[in-house]
Amino acid sequence: MSCDKLFNGTKDRFHGVTVDSTQEPCDDLNFPNNLKRSLEQWRDTGVRGVWFKVALADSAWVPILAQNGFRFHHAQPSYVMMVCWLPTNEVCNIPQYASTMVGVGAIVMNDRRQILVVSEKYKLFPHWKLPGGYVEPGEEIVNAAEREVLEETSVRAKFKQMVCFRHVHNFTFGCSDMYFIVALTPEPGQEVLKKCDREIDAVEWMNVEEYLNHPHVHSTNRFFVKKYLEYEASGISLSYIEDTHPILKKPYLIYSLDLGSQTPVVSEDNMLSQSNQSNKL
Amino acid sequence: MSCDKLFNGTKDRFHGVTVDSTQEPCDDLNFPNNLKRSLEQWRDTGVRGVWFKVALADSAWVPILAQNGFRFHHAQPSYVMMVCWLPTNEVCNIPQYASTMVGVGAIVMNDRRQILVVSEKYKLFPHWKLPGGYVEPGEEIVNAAEREVLEETSVRAKFKQMVCFRHVHNFTFGCSDMYFIVALTPEPGQEVLKKCDREIDAVEWMNVEEYLNHPHVHSTNRFFVKKYLEYEASGISLSYIEDTHPILKKPYLIYSLDLGSQTPVVSEDNMLSQSNQSNKL
Repeated sequence: MSCDKLFNGTKDRFHGVTVDSTQEPCDDLNFPNNLKRSLEQWRDTGVRGVWFKVALADSAWVPILAQNGFRFHHAQPSYVMMVCWLPTNEVCNIPQYASTMVGVGAIVMNDRRQILVVSEKYKLFPHWKLPGGYVEPGEEIVNAAEREVLEETSVRAKFKQMVCFRHVHNFTFGCSDMYFIVALTPEPGQEVLKKCDREIDAVEWMNVEEYLNHPHVHSTNRFFVKKYLEYEASGISLSYIEDTHPILKKPYLIYSLDLGSQTPVVSEDNMLSQSNQSNKL
Repeated sequence: MSCDKLFNGTKDRFHGVTVDSTQEPCDDLNFPNNLKRSLEQWRDTGVRGVWFKVALADSAWVPILAQNGFRFHHAQPSYVMMVCWLPTNEVCNIPQYASTMVGVGAIVMNDRRQILVVSEKYKLFPHWKLPGGYVEPGEEIVNAAEREVLEETSVRAKFKQMVCFRHVHNFTFGCSDMYFIVALTPEPGQEVLKKCDREIDAVEWMNVEEYLNHPHVHSTNRFFVKKYLEYEASGISLSYIEDTHPILKKPYLIYSLDLGSQTPVVSEDNMLSQSNQSNKL
């Protein structure tokens, strides 16, 4: 393949152009010259951000782009996205890429007031933790909690409510980390536990009072469980509604307090009743 | 600079090795051979993940790494991180990089029950929105809300409580997006508004009842403000405590419900009082 012509790219509403190496193939020999000529044309026509999405197989383009003023923006396993800001009279206002990793931990309590706890295979030191893990890209927090509990312990459980979240910075890969604690209700007849051998060393149902006093339980996990017991006693729940973005038409969830019977003070005019929230949003 | 020796890299507790191109310089001519010899040695000694952090100036390494089985993991403006999983008898368990962007919107209500609203300069269509923007890497949500309000409207305001958050997928750069709504209290004497000309077209204090009925207000924003009024009326607040990770010794925040006087049901043994939470965690 060769390219003796200018790159077209795809235009966006910010007067930017994105070239995808898989859509506009170009051999390595012609690439430097074609890039230079394309950049000249883009400068002349008022293009602002120029993006090159370079597939792993085309990574010979990377050093040439770097020599021509491009920097890295983000990468996925199969490509790296490089960008160059052309305007000289305007500060670059391109947002940074994602820097937050999202995880879940699950409080699964059965009707005998036992909670599901696990001990990890690769641990820094022994402790009983809540089952959980990373939320996958595009996955809902709620579904991630149900999935991780099933994978690690074989217990099928359903979302009951959100409890809280921890926010910490400079964590894995230097990213920020949000760890959401979600309470789940186990489906009936889940007393037999079968652990995930790859990740988990032990799994058991532990009386909640024992958990709160166990020497091998971190104080943070104890706090999470105590918070959940508080919520349970109060009847107030942190839950979600599903809706659709009014402009972008994308589905989303909004997590907020369901104050239920605890909020007699707000007038009917001022509040959405839980039953018709989804329609009104 | 040249390198006629093996790469050392830095070892981690997962039996991985990370080579930083700025720490172990190598000319492009010697790089392929030294990489091959290093990989052989790492294979022989049971190394699992091999990471190369390649600076923009060393990006000639990128195509050579790609030819040797490396893929991209993530990138920052000044480097790309590539990785190769060596074990053939073990599935690669390297976590994906961050894929969530975090933003804030602020409900700033003064004692005349007016809220601070802005109209953006670059909008898809006209509407009155809540001031806000992206949370910077390493920044607390709370501080981001205060900063954005100050930047966009010149109003100094302090965190009062968290209200809710929206979670949507496949958003900017294909990432997931979490948008946190935070209520702030303006400091006294902030009636004169001065907008940020670069981003904001108009800013004003609007009566909250007018906002809830204004035709140029999105239903989602209306929902956020209604939720806040509910919380305010109930006396229940979604707030945070500061603490330190018990193992990693990193500071963090935990956001949860402060049930205050609304929770007489839980016994003292089972709950942490708000005043001593930080010490006990």
